[in-house]
Amino acid sequence: MTNLLIIGAGRSATTMIQYLLDHAERGDWQVTVADRIESLAQAKVGDHPRGRAIAFDVADAAQCEAEVKAADLVISLLPAHMHVIPGKFCLQYRTHMITASYVSPEMKALDSEAREKGVLFLNEIGADPGIDHMSTMEMVDRIKAEGGKIQSFRSYCGAIVAPESSNRWGYKFTWAPRNIILAGTGGVAKYLRDGKTKYVPYHHIFRRTQTVRVPNYGDFEAYANRDSVMYAPLYALEEVPTVLRATLRHPGFCEMWQAMIDLGLTDDSYSIPDSEGMTYRDFICSYVNEIPGHSDAESMALFLDLPVDGPTMEKLLALDLLSDEVIPLKNASPADILEHILMDRWKFEPEDTDMVVMQHQIEYDLHGGRRKLVSSMVDKGQDHEHTAISRTVGLPAAIAARLVLEGKIKSTGVQIPLSPDIYAPVLAELENYGIRFVEETYFVPEPEGV
Amino acid sequence: MTNLLIIGAGRSATTMIQYLLDHAERGDWQVTVADRIESLAQAKVGDHPRGRAIAFDVADAAQCEAEVKAADLVISLLPAHMHVIPGKFCLQYRTHMITASYVSPEMKALDSEAREKGVLFLNEIGADPGIDHMSTMEMVDRIKAEGGKIQSFRSYCGAIVAPESSNRWGYKFTWAPRNIILAGTGGVAKYLRDGKTKYVPYHHIFRRTQTVRVPNYGDFEAYANRDSVMYAPLYALEEVPTVLRATLRHPGFCEMWQAMIDLGLTDDSYSIPDSEGMTYRDFICSYVNEIPGHSDAESMALFLDLPVDGPTMEKLLALDLLSDEVIPLKNASPADILEHILMDRWKFEPEDTDMVVMQHQIEYDLHGGRRKLVSSMVDKGQDHEHTAISRTVGLPAAIAARLVLEGKIKSTGVQIPLSPDIYAPVLAELENYGIRFVEETYFVPEPEGV
Repeated sequence: MTNLLIIGAGRSATTMIQYLLDHAERGDWQVTVADRIESLAQAKVGDHPRGRAIAFDVADAAQCEAEVKAADLVISLLPAHMHVIPGKFCLQYRTHMITASYVSPEMKALDSEAREKGVLFLNEIGADPGIDHMSTMEMVDRIKAEGGKIQSFRSYCGAIVAPESSNRWGYKFTWAPRNIILAGTGGVAKYLRDGKTKYVPYHHIFRRTQTVRVPNYGDFEAYANRDSVMYAPLYALEEVPTVLRATLRHPGFCEMWQAMIDLGLTDDSYSIPDSEGMTYRDFICSYVNEIPGHSDAESMALFLDLPVDGPTMEKLLALDLLSDEVIPLKNASPADILEHILMDRWKFEPEDTDMVVMQHQIEYDLHGGRRKLVSSMVDKGQDHEHTAISRTVGLPAAIAARLVLEGKIKSTGVQIPLSPDIYAPVLAELENYGIRFVEETYFVPEPEGV
Repeated sequence: MTNLLIIGAGRSATTMIQYLLDHAERGDWQVTVADRIESLAQAKVGDHPRGRAIAFDVADAAQCEAEVKAADLVISLLPAHMHVIPGKFCLQYRTHMITASYVSPEMKALDSEAREKGVLFLNEIGADPGIDHMSTMEMVDRIKAEGGKIQSFRSYCGAIVAPESSNRWGYKFTWAPRNIILAGTGGVAKYLRDGKTKYVPYHHIFRRTQTVRVPNYGDFEAYANRDSVMYAPLYALEEVPTVLRATLRHPGFCEMWQAMIDLGLTDDSYSIPDSEGMTYRDFICSYVNEIPGHSDAESMALFLDLPVDGPTMEKLLALDLLSDEVIPLKNASPADILEHILMDRWKFEPEDTDMVVMQHQIEYDLHGGRRKLVSSMVDKGQDHEHTAISRTVGLPAAIAARLVLEGKIKSTGVQIPLSPDIYAPVLAELENYGIRFVEETYFVPEPEGV
């Protein structure tokens, strides 16, 4: 029997666990689901004969070693910096590992030993990163094989609430709220346009947006991701003058979020000593310069240079930002307070559905003309448990796990899914689960602007 | 004979050294001027019989110990974090020390030992910090002694080029360029208004300005300093609802600097790999979103939301920001490149004069009415060597040195000049050197806004 260890049984594990249990009989696998909370693991496993749920603490080295030793493959859903804890035992016992996280420097450092020992650490095989890498490489390789010369690459992805579950703000927390609050705060965003690097400072990122049209789903807004430039060599696009990766939101979100940034509410670098007991109104007014003879809302609109009766002011006021509700947080940063306000109002409710939207736009020259290939994927959650996030993160990792155990993926070392031996079978299997890209090809008279 | 050791002979030491040499005969002092560059020290000492110039390396512990041991008082013009190097020997040999720097944590840590040994470390006795502390405390103590209840305190200071030496940008580097480039980048600015803390994020600091009128000198612009709130307890203004400290510039500077920030040019957090050989135009265009059918200047004006023919665009273009001149810096940050551009164009030339402008505005209630006391000081440089910066930084330190050697300042431990035994004689002597405050008292019908 082959043993599979899944560390972490949170929401993003649901679809993954189900896929692996569904394939367990055929492969003669035992699927162990390990979580700090045993009942959570148990709920995911149910009474499946091939399933085993255990209470698991990654800090318990003896338990971690024993479980990894017993396993043929580990899927780690731990936070990115913690994968190396079971990872060390994977090297020791030659157990493969799969994660959906970005390769951390600590992970990267395991590469040569992993190659030596014939162990695979396959990372970034979720939605984004994951499906984005695979679908991009499939298109890039195909266009090149046809003889096309790629002139621009733009890739967009967003994990958002489905339109039918949306609210007036166009956003609900379908995943980690902190990631939304701090999105872009890391520094300047950069991308390539017409052969030149373009920089967008944080305080402009949500102002410099584009509209992206997705067939059957209408328009979305996109803002530039942190670093698109590093993707040019990764995707073998070194000679391509335009390379952009961006995040998708429902229309109107970016102007509202820019207002949050302009107000200073996303700052996590300092705390407010008297935050506890302060009203929301006091909090907001500590950033807005009150104009004598004007209401706080009018002062706020003037400060933001927005119409007082426009859609963004309407959204901000609907968050009760000027209410006398009291902040219960001690010594909170502005970002802490903003998160607290939004958690309440942007809650992803049990009856809500999420969606993951991805689109690649590749312009290339072929047979003397310029073409634009637009490839779009939309996945919608099936219910609150089988969300689009859970499906698009969990299925690629689960499929890759199957392929590794079946001996169909033979790479070793620290990898991400860029090569056809990985992306081709994973993308093909994702189609069976409804995660498929729809392509449209346009002829373009001349290069477009970003 | 009494021995005085001055470490550092740069421009800011000129007036200080001259003052101390002028008083050396009467006090029977020997004045040793120590600098890494002996010729610089020698030029400042000239052939004065009481002067001694030496080559000095603070990293040479033996020399540092010998010189401190021989001295009765040390004035250190080293960078703030280095004062503790001679400071350790000051404790060992019970030698007093004076600096014009903010008290560093390392300096603060010497306090109890200094008190024990009867040694004084007097810091922040320059212009700002220095004259600002002393003149503020003199007014605050006087108003309180009269029975006045202080309602607001606002204090402004700027070290800028004199109007007659100014350029179209209203700025020349009369002191460290880096400090200008990075001004405000440390984070949010905060101050008190009407009992509430107000926060101004960096990307708004130069947008939220006030006009300050100085008698005989006209209008200046002020932007909020990093942390005004911490000054309330320092100045015994704990109960005062409005406390603001701000920096003065010539009018028009702040809108121009806000444009630099909006463009992202003051960012020092990342470097541009291909900066060397890039033209200024390419550099600027990596931040500006070019609008098809518009010139780069028009795109820039659109990006900044400024009139293309307005004064700020005129200033930016006059910096040759859109020229084909080539950047010679490798792997430079935007701030590095901006500094390089400005160094050339904002040079403080030998024929130029600088000025230091300070104004305090204190509103207080007395005899049932509200008054506003406005106290202004302007000092202009006498020539390129005897600059206003050199005078206002050097004279307070020099005067304090004299008072310490004459036994008129008796405090010990790590101090800043907040008490009358220090500020009263120093301010009185500064008047003899033309550094004096002019006061005006207004009656105010009701509290003003910030």
